[in-house]
Amino acid sequence: MSTLLPKPSILILQTPLHTHRSAITSLTPFNSTRQRSKRLPSLIVNARAPSQTKEEGSSLPSMLTDLKNDKPTQTNHSLVDSWREIHGSTDWARMLDPIDPLLRSELIRYGEMVQACYDSFDFDPCSKHCGSSKYSRRHFFEELGMSGCGYEVTRYLYATSNLDMPNFFKKSRWEKVWSKSANWMGYIAVSDDETSARLGRRDVVVVWRGTVTGLEWVADLMDFLKPVTSEGIPCPDPDVKIESGFLDLYGEKDATCRFSKYSAREQVLTEVKRLVELYAKEGGEEVSISIMGHSLGSALAMVSAYDIAETGVRGDCPVCVFSFAGPRVGNWKFKERFEKDLGLKALRVVNMHDKVPQVPGMIFNERVPQAVRRFVDGLPWSYSHVGVELELDHKKSPFLKETGDVSCYHNMEAHLHLLDGYHGKGERFVLASSRDPALVNKSADFLKDDYLVPPNWRQDENKGMIRDDEGRWTQPERPKPDDHPPHTNYHLQQLGLDSN
Amino acid sequence: MSTLLPKPSILILQTPLHTHRSAITSLTPFNSTRQRSKRLPSLIVNARAPSQTKEEGSSLPSMLTDLKNDKPTQTNHSLVDSWREIHGSTDWARMLDPIDPLLRSELIRYGEMVQACYDSFDFDPCSKHCGSSKYSRRHFFEELGMSGCGYEVTRYLYATSNLDMPNFFKKSRWEKVWSKSANWMGYIAVSDDETSARLGRRDVVVVWRGTVTGLEWVADLMDFLKPVTSEGIPCPDPDVKIESGFLDLYGEKDATCRFSKYSAREQVLTEVKRLVELYAKEGGEEVSISIMGHSLGSALAMVSAYDIAETGVRGDCPVCVFSFAGPRVGNWKFKERFEKDLGLKALRVVNMHDKVPQVPGMIFNERVPQAVRRFVDGLPWSYSHVGVELELDHKKSPFLKETGDVSCYHNMEAHLHLLDGYHGKGERFVLASSRDPALVNKSADFLKDDYLVPPNWRQDENKGMIRDDEGRWTQPERPKPDDHPPHTNYHLQQLGLDSN
Repeated sequence: MSTLLPKPSILILQTPLHTHRSAITSLTPFNSTRQRSKRLPSLIVNARAPSQTKEEGSSLPSMLTDLKNDKPTQTNHSLVDSWREIHGSTDWARMLDPIDPLLRSELIRYGEMVQACYDSFDFDPCSKHCGSSKYSRRHFFEELGMSGCGYEVTRYLYATSNLDMPNFFKKSRWEKVWSKSANWMGYIAVSDDETSARLGRRDVVVVWRGTVTGLEWVADLMDFLKPVTSEGIPCPDPDVKIESGFLDLYGEKDATCRFSKYSAREQVLTEVKRLVELYAKEGGEEVSISIMGHSLGSALAMVSAYDIAETGVRGDCPVCVFSFAGPRVGNWKFKERFEKDLGLKALRVVNMHDKVPQVPGMIFNERVPQAVRRFVDGLPWSYSHVGVELELDHKKSPFLKETGDVSCYHNMEAHLHLLDGYHGKGERFVLASSRDPALVNKSADFLKDDYLVPPNWRQDENKGMIRDDEGRWTQPERPKPDDHPPHTNYHLQQLGLDSN
Repeated sequence: MSTLLPKPSILILQTPLHTHRSAITSLTPFNSTRQRSKRLPSLIVNARAPSQTKEEGSSLPSMLTDLKNDKPTQTNHSLVDSWREIHGSTDWARMLDPIDPLLRSELIRYGEMVQACYDSFDFDPCSKHCGSSKYSRRHFFEELGMSGCGYEVTRYLYATSNLDMPNFFKKSRWEKVWSKSANWMGYIAVSDDETSARLGRRDVVVVWRGTVTGLEWVADLMDFLKPVTSEGIPCPDPDVKIESGFLDLYGEKDATCRFSKYSAREQVLTEVKRLVELYAKEGGEEVSISIMGHSLGSALAMVSAYDIAETGVRGDCPVCVFSFAGPRVGNWKFKERFEKDLGLKALRVVNMHDKVPQVPGMIFNERVPQAVRRFVDGLPWSYSHVGVELELDHKKSPFLKETGDVSCYHNMEAHLHLLDGYHGKGERFVLASSRDPALVNKSADFLKDDYLVPPNWRQDENKGMIRDDEGRWTQPERPKPDDHPPHTNYHLQQLGLDSN
């Protein structure tokens, strides 16, 4: 099924895929200083703010020099050799400070798959497709200019919006809409043969969309823990609990809705089960399960990763969560079950100034001393982060301006930019790739004005309106989304979840 | 120079040019009911609001029938015969109620030249080109999909923004901009040979941009009249006065600025003079001067038309103003000078619910009885409208919704839509052309939701950002705007205005 191809230049792997960049461009090797010095001036020219030199103790020209001799980005190992460590097998020991350049580019690569959810999601309440993906499953990466990522989307994920999360779900203002009670929540994809060869294994990714920038959804959380068993997750310990809002979003469904007649849980379990059986069990391949999400999507990534392990759907495959700006998800018992009992791995990328990773559980959380823990652990509002944290600091980037807009601190593109410039705690901020800082302002107003990049610049021409044959302006129809795969029921039955 | 071509089907002239519609489409003859009944269903399908039938006493299907037998749109005269009447030679006597269909389509044709200012103007403070035209003079109509209009833009008009009109001028938030003290104000164009043949004369148009929808600029007006002589306009009567704000905008300049080193007045006088001499005096052609504007642009249209006549620049050419949603401009003496002494014509298209045409001079205006007039006429805040009014009523359109947003009542596209459905006072609203009602929502939220047309849908993809050869997102440079034509000084001297 997958014939391992000759090992390619590792430098290909070091270049994160640039959203909207064609496969060819995005995979251009990036080791030649010629190319760099050709590229960077466009940043230097823009970097006129005299303040920068003072602020950062280094002007951009000097950053250019640093970049040329940027040893850390020259790495002597490839994913084929080291994907297990990057996937957390050693809990990223000695890989974060200084950061392993291959880990950094992999984090950006996975992060761009998360950003893809925002770039494809229709947020516009005045669109009759509001709440759906703008692009069809089969052309998802292609439409986003990410064909080069080498993954195929095998399933879209939906959740019912019949939940008390007014600030999370997007609903159209029109009457005639694609669905009244479902929202597109992300996708499941699998690496193709060529990419699998480069990655050193077949990679199954589960990607959850979150909220673009707004933080209002946090107010929707009831800050109340529920046993995972209440959602039918077969956990031996009834004290393993998860924030009820996340659990509802993951487990609820709407029998009357074509898209959410299966819960997000049922959708993700059945598809991952199918892919693991197809590639690992039948194909005999090495398979990894990588689960990503930003913001609220990060919570769903944690819950689904845990569920995939608890239900045994993962088989023998390693499961790793790459979380961006994620809130806390469960209690201390959840953390223990997640890490110790199930051996799940999670790397949480956060911006130290972002408040979202500090909720829920501002008061009682993983920082509570062991001695006190047993007293507070019974409390319904005692939360604990899981996995390993990689803390970034947006104040270190000379590209970003001072702003009181906290949604900028939380922004996904901002995290990708911060990763690109991160070399280790105390290290100076130096871009490691040619990733365009202008992307930060796609849906934010975070870049310094000197760069002449308009805020919130990502928008469709004429809000997607097109002119029909008779010259009339209309909202075009979109390809009808797939029905749930026919094998969904079969796998549900096998999982003993056949409630339809 | 211009060889008059054989007279074409008058029906060509009846189809207004659809913004963004290709020349071919826009000039498609429009007399076949087949085409109509093919076109209109797309409206009927959308017209679901049961309220409509009640409100309007006619469902859209019945409107279709009416439209098929819409005798008024069948006209038996052509522009070659009747352009003078349409240009006001008879003060539009017996042409407004019921409206002459050829006059209606001409008003829409001229109105779309005004709308073109909004469609091309860069309003975005986050664009480094803010305050300029997005498109170069030479490709102006082409870029707007209006090549079919058959006019060539011969000059762009600029004004200095060093005036106390904070709500009118648009300034970029960036440091490096095309100009710190100028705003693009409109254009001068002339009909090509073929179009002139159809129009029955060479048509010189002066088009002034106004304010898209916002009405804040009204607050900028000082509501204070100044003698036109104070701006150097050679008027024998020192009591002829114009609102000082309009006069300043028209007459001010900035010697240090490449674009506004000549005042708007100097720009328009010299170019009209040049064209009149070229076509009328040297070419021996019949030439008309048509001056248009919406909102504040309408005021500039009135002032410039008056100036063109007062200075004698017009030669023997008839001058007519087609005004849309325009405020009052001058005092009673100005009205007398404009209409009686100079024989200027002005047709003012207004929406009866729009407040702008009621300012300045809410209290003392043309409605004051003759007897009282001599007492109030001396007051600095006694204003008078000029010309003939064509009053429309947006409540008559079954396409528009109830809204408290007064900027909708003032919107230019809304006026074009209302014209298209207007047949006379008390007549039912029936679209006379295939002009797309969806255009109303280009920069407004005025259409009924049933039509599924998003509000304010006119926008550029990614705010005009493009990716350079290296894949970086940037604001593209725009073709450098022309310098003022070299002959400007020559004509200024001839006019005795050479103050540079």
